[in-house]
Amino acid sequence: MEYDKFIGKYVGRTELRVDAYGKVTGRAKYSADLAPKDSYVAKVLHSTIGNGEVVSIDIEEAKKVDGVVGVFTCFDVPDIEFPTAGHPYSLDPGHRDLCDRHLLNKRVRYYGDDIAAVVALDEVAATKALKKIKVEYKEYPVFTTAREGLDKNATPLHPNLFKDNVIAHIDFKTDKDFDYDKAMEEAKKQYGAENLVEIVKNVKTPLISHSHLELPVSYAYVDTNGKITVVASTQIPHIVRRCVAHALGVPMGKVRIIKPYIGGGFGNKQDALYEPLNAWLTTKVNGHPVLLEISREETIVSTRTRHRMDADIKGVCTKDGKLLFRKITNYVANGGYASHGNSITAKCAGIFKNLYKNPMGCSSEAYTVYTNSPTSGAMRAYGVPQSVSFAETLADDLCFKAGLDPYKFRMDNIVEEGFKDGGNVFYTYGLKDAMKIGHDHIKWEEKREKYKNQTGNIRRGVGMCCFMYQTAVWPISLEVSGVRMILNQDGSMQLQIGATEIGQGADTVFSQIAAETTGITFDKVYIMSTQDTDLTPYDSGAYGSRQSYVCGNAIHKCGQIFKKNILEYAIHMKPEYKVEDLDVDNNNVIIKKSGEVILTMAELATNAIYEKDGLNNHIHAEASIETTTNTFASGCCFVDIEIDMKLGLITIKDIINVHDSGTILNPALAIAQVHGGMSMSLGYAMSEELLVDEKTGRVLNDNWLDYKIPTAMDSPDFHVEFVNMKDPTGGYGNKALGEPPAVPPAVAVRNAVLNATGCMMNEFPMTSQRLVAEFKKQGLI
Amino acid sequence: MEYDKFIGKYVGRTELRVDAYGKVTGRAKYSADLAPKDSYVAKVLHSTIGNGEVVSIDIEEAKKVDGVVGVFTCFDVPDIEFPTAGHPYSLDPGHRDLCDRHLLNKRVRYYGDDIAAVVALDEVAATKALKKIKVEYKEYPVFTTAREGLDKNATPLHPNLFKDNVIAHIDFKTDKDFDYDKAMEEAKKQYGAENLVEIVKNVKTPLISHSHLELPVSYAYVDTNGKITVVASTQIPHIVRRCVAHALGVPMGKVRIIKPYIGGGFGNKQDALYEPLNAWLTTKVNGHPVLLEISREETIVSTRTRHRMDADIKGVCTKDGKLLFRKITNYVANGGYASHGNSITAKCAGIFKNLYKNPMGCSSEAYTVYTNSPTSGAMRAYGVPQSVSFAETLADDLCFKAGLDPYKFRMDNIVEEGFKDGGNVFYTYGLKDAMKIGHDHIKWEEKREKYKNQTGNIRRGVGMCCFMYQTAVWPISLEVSGVRMILNQDGSMQLQIGATEIGQGADTVFSQIAAETTGITFDKVYIMSTQDTDLTPYDSGAYGSRQSYVCGNAIHKCGQIFKKNILEYAIHMKPEYKVEDLDVDNNNVIIKKSGEVILTMAELATNAIYEKDGLNNHIHAEASIETTTNTFASGCCFVDIEIDMKLGLITIKDIINVHDSGTILNPALAIAQVHGGMSMSLGYAMSEELLVDEKTGRVLNDNWLDYKIPTAMDSPDFHVEFVNMKDPTGGYGNKALGEPPAVPPAVAVRNAVLNATGCMMNEFPMTSQRLVAEFKKQGLI
Repeated sequence: MEYDKFIGKYVGRTELRVDAYGKVTGRAKYSADLAPKDSYVAKVLHSTIGNGEVVSIDIEEAKKVDGVVGVFTCFDVPDIEFPTAGHPYSLDPGHRDLCDRHLLNKRVRYYGDDIAAVVALDEVAATKALKKIKVEYKEYPVFTTAREGLDKNATPLHPNLFKDNVIAHIDFKTDKDFDYDKAMEEAKKQYGAENLVEIVKNVKTPLISHSHLELPVSYAYVDTNGKITVVASTQIPHIVRRCVAHALGVPMGKVRIIKPYIGGGFGNKQDALYEPLNAWLTTKVNGHPVLLEISREETIVSTRTRHRMDADIKGVCTKDGKLLFRKITNYVANGGYASHGNSITAKCAGIFKNLYKNPMGCSSEAYTVYTNSPTSGAMRAYGVPQSVSFAETLADDLCFKAGLDPYKFRMDNIVEEGFKDGGNVFYTYGLKDAMKIGHDHIKWEEKREKYKNQTGNIRRGVGMCCFMYQTAVWPISLEVSGVRMILNQDGSMQLQIGATEIGQGADTVFSQIAAETTGITFDKVYIMSTQDTDLTPYDSGAYGSRQSYVCGNAIHKCGQIFKKNILEYAIHMKPEYKVEDLDVDNNNVIIKKSGEVILTMAELATNAIYEKDGLNNHIHAEASIETTTNTFASGCCFVDIEIDMKLGLITIKDIINVHDSGTILNPALAIAQVHGGMSMSLGYAMSEELLVDEKTGRVLNDNWLDYKIPTAMDSPDFHVEFVNMKDPTGGYGNKALGEPPAVPPAVAVRNAVLNATGCMMNEFPMTSQRLVAEFKKQGLI
Repeated sequence: MEYDKFIGKYVGRTELRVDAYGKVTGRAKYSADLAPKDSYVAKVLHSTIGNGEVVSIDIEEAKKVDGVVGVFTCFDVPDIEFPTAGHPYSLDPGHRDLCDRHLLNKRVRYYGDDIAAVVALDEVAATKALKKIKVEYKEYPVFTTAREGLDKNATPLHPNLFKDNVIAHIDFKTDKDFDYDKAMEEAKKQYGAENLVEIVKNVKTPLISHSHLELPVSYAYVDTNGKITVVASTQIPHIVRRCVAHALGVPMGKVRIIKPYIGGGFGNKQDALYEPLNAWLTTKVNGHPVLLEISREETIVSTRTRHRMDADIKGVCTKDGKLLFRKITNYVANGGYASHGNSITAKCAGIFKNLYKNPMGCSSEAYTVYTNSPTSGAMRAYGVPQSVSFAETLADDLCFKAGLDPYKFRMDNIVEEGFKDGGNVFYTYGLKDAMKIGHDHIKWEEKREKYKNQTGNIRRGVGMCCFMYQTAVWPISLEVSGVRMILNQDGSMQLQIGATEIGQGADTVFSQIAAETTGITFDKVYIMSTQDTDLTPYDSGAYGSRQSYVCGNAIHKCGQIFKKNILEYAIHMKPEYKVEDLDVDNNNVIIKKSGEVILTMAELATNAIYEKDGLNNHIHAEASIETTTNTFASGCCFVDIEIDMKLGLITIKDIINVHDSGTILNPALAIAQVHGGMSMSLGYAMSEELLVDEKTGRVLNDNWLDYKIPTAMDSPDFHVEFVNMKDPTGGYGNKALGEPPAVPPAVAVRNAVLNATGCMMNEFPMTSQRLVAEFKKQGLI
């Protein structure tokens, strides 16, 4: 397959990560490394009930602990409810995030809610004091699932916002008059009842912890100029700034957020987590630095999770393989607080609807419901892993029931080139080519044939799963990114960006784009990795697979201005030339036509700063871009598995992700990105699930001993391919790649289980227990 | 006296220092506060001979000390000689600073030269190891004075640069044919020998330590991206960047300098002091952070000092008070290294020549000479305190001998309005008005009359001294300054500048200028105090009383662009208006004519960042200015003293400095600035002097017990007045004020001693010992 590709001098090529050496050698500093030597240490007291109210807190004994600086409770915090979601602010009040939590909460909405905090000279004193705080509660009955939350008897958790617990109810329909039952009648008329196949089922997806390596750490202090400053492990410094200002009731200019290197986030750090509390605590101790390190246990319970969804799904196709219509009703447990509110549910619902052609319609209905369970928020791919858990298990179940080939079924029914949903457009479409690559790699027909009619304990199966994914968040939300460039005196350049490196390699790709655009070589592009809201051009941060798209375009724009400024100085030095005849290449100002070097960048830069002619010029450029396009990325996973039926043990024998992500900016980094996503999805498939006690709302496995993420030992060889097409909207033709890899593997494995065993597993993760129970139920073992 | 003044909404008014609260409460962080917790500690080994060579160094025992990470000697450093002066780089090779030192020196040029360094886990280990280093030297005869340095037999200290020890020999003449003896013959012809008065004398000024409170501290590390980063207490981060790059032989883009708050510099930190060595040391220990804190003793001996000068002076006036011609030959001991080279001597020579009209000519000759004494460099007022020690004692001595009134003599003979010297111009001239204010304050004639013919042990005297002073360094050197402004979402602004706050209050004045120019109120201007060469627009730093002039103009320029950008966004929101009809005032966009508010800045700023219309705008401005003017500031000191003849004790009964510094940007800060300078000058007058042992070159009083700076207990009430005229070249009419206050008091006191006792004290400081010796010599006690 040959496409219009972009492979430049730097973009489209593997360059070494700009932070590789520093990270490997430990030079890279993270928030906790940077905290001042004399920082106080804060610890948070979490509720030990799942639903209720704090009646009183006795802090007298806690205050007496040696080394305690202060004890603060939910009775002390400002009476301001604030939002935490990593969304750009909206000028439309109806589009703003819900303000539903205090810095510390009197009203307890989940087991682990924040109700008090201790600030002490050290961790020992803080921990000791925490244990001496006595809390009196009034308890209400706990409900942990969305369906329970919808019950009329469930206590409304946020009665000032909603009379019930429904954050939102949506129903995305292909046609406002679509009705599943009417469609069925119509289909029967059109195709004959005997030619229709229907699947009606329920699918459940698990509550998942992001499991980023670096915990949510921050330290806060009031700076010399009175600014409340928080150095934090966050994906979204500029948004955290707004949330902190909101929570404390101070103007945004009074707040400064600094983001050093961070050790992963996966969406958890796309919320203002403990930064607002930390900011407030420093103001209570005269602005002294306060370090707040959240433990793994607290991170699992009291930060954010991937939504637990519980969907009733049905769909109909013809026996000869035409998908006709579908319906989903998704019950989404959001936990005690809204965080991203309904937006994740909505994205899930949208992709369910859009992934297939719906000749006779589709209804994608959902309820986002407050529950007494850990708060769910953004996690890599933002509802789309669940979405394909619904759409892509339905597809395979229909095929299985109708005896159809799932690959051919998808080729016929899946979303087509040029598809549009509002501003989201499939500008370049590589999905079917991706499917073809995966299909060939896995030897689809050969394996399907071979794996027919298996018996015995060890069985094999192949499966596949497709997805589509928006690039960035426009037109739902604002997409803006700012960039600044400065020419150093030696002809190298500084690159200052608002978008954030969170471990994904963004800094490297940004540097490649800057080098490609400006003509200054990659090794001479010095990116400022730290974002500082006082100095960094505005960008909303790392999420939505947006950065290399939106910020990439911003770098492209800024780079053009920067180069123009360089060339204008060049003709000041060499007046015999015209700007339009010159270019910058390989650190030289050259004549476009001949390639002849007329000045080195070092000569130009030195002259620009030091020439004493009254025209001295600090060469720089700063530019902001608002992106008003959004292009669909897509892709698929193909997998070949072996199952030990009695052990309920799935072994991945072969797996490939194929991505339609436009230009692959840095192949090695892109592959690494896909590897990580595939591993994450295999955890979702087979082992990761937070267990919430139904009676108390307490998380039963809040640690990495009991909550199982795949390790290197559990991982197969990951194969990765790309459909490398140049998209017309990306700076260098690139589309989303950050989140998509985490989408398809889980369902591909599930569909391979179906292929191997005929069992339709409809609850993730497919643990050994669940598999064995299902195999028993089906009489297979 | 009424002038064209500028008093704006903020400029010209006393605003509270932006860093006052933070500094008083200890929030402000200095370099040592910021060093990472795990920093290694470095210590420097200094030579214990004054002139010679290191033959060998045995570091074996030192390396064995527990906790030692590395020991590095003058045999290990790169063979690169580098400059250290805080001058902007020049494209003219002839105008560049001398490269005359290695990071550690095999060739020892003064007692205390840097010859080795230890890096250890802590200070104890480093200190212990330092003591175990064994050094073998080859010694040469020591010479500590400029006159000795000129001796043909003196060993050349830098034979690769000069065959002798003369860094430079200059002779600034009013007329190239001027000859003192010929002028005398001519004067005799013209006025008659009997009508002429001549003074021939020698004046000596002391070697002085800047005595800034914060010692020269830095820490260095190699950052994640491979950048050699130095966080340093420096006045000149961008220049230190260049010096470090030069010293290490790496491109400038590979070096990053960060300057936090600093606790004073007074010119000592206008040199790259130990930053280059610190930068090199971190590269030798795998980029681990290395903290290098220089002790007071080391600071006094091994950083920089105010030049010791020794001048032969003569001059002639007529008996009726017309100054005719003068000549000075100044022998300037520069110490072991060039540092600022000849430029301080040259400034001293220029002001000597320029301060008076020279109807029959003037010759200002000087030798800047390498000596085996501590290196001299920039210190507050850069040679001009010495210059007036020569010019203004000569003036009073002539008056005394001729029986003239020194005030009237100056009124008749001092430099006049409109005076030009190359690009330096007296655009506004307040010197005579300043003299009048001082004269009236001190009750000149009344006191002069009263203090006539005193006898006895307690005597009184009045004295005065005038000066003139360039603002900034153009046209000798480049004058450039860069500024960046960002609009925060709440309508407040960030102000990022290359110029440095070094304790003088620059940040406050910059914020006032920004508020005045942009219409955003002072409390909403957030200045970024830290300079970071990776991010901060280029500015050469704090020296030459340049910043509020050059950077002030840059803020003015940037502010205009910033306001234009704001107004352009305003008409995007309110298309019914035109940019030229609008203004920003008091955080509002207003209609110029009516003052009607059409938008608040908060509304505009929020809209600019969050409006989802594709025209989203990160409002900012960045501008650099090259200043090609230089205006003379001037002023005077008047003093009334009491002397206890037997104790040799001078008590200041009344003192006033009057400054012609253009617009006084912030009166309270300006007064504080003058107070500090007056105190510094009284130290120069009466107590401060580093004593150098002639035989060894060793400094005998390298500590604050033996080297006496005035304390609050020694200080009189300082009176301060300003001739507040708006200069046409300053952004808001301001001229130099930073350094001038330190110039005139010392000589005013000296001239008061002359008035009180008839003794011409010609050696500073006028210690009790020197006074008593002189009084005895004159038979007064």
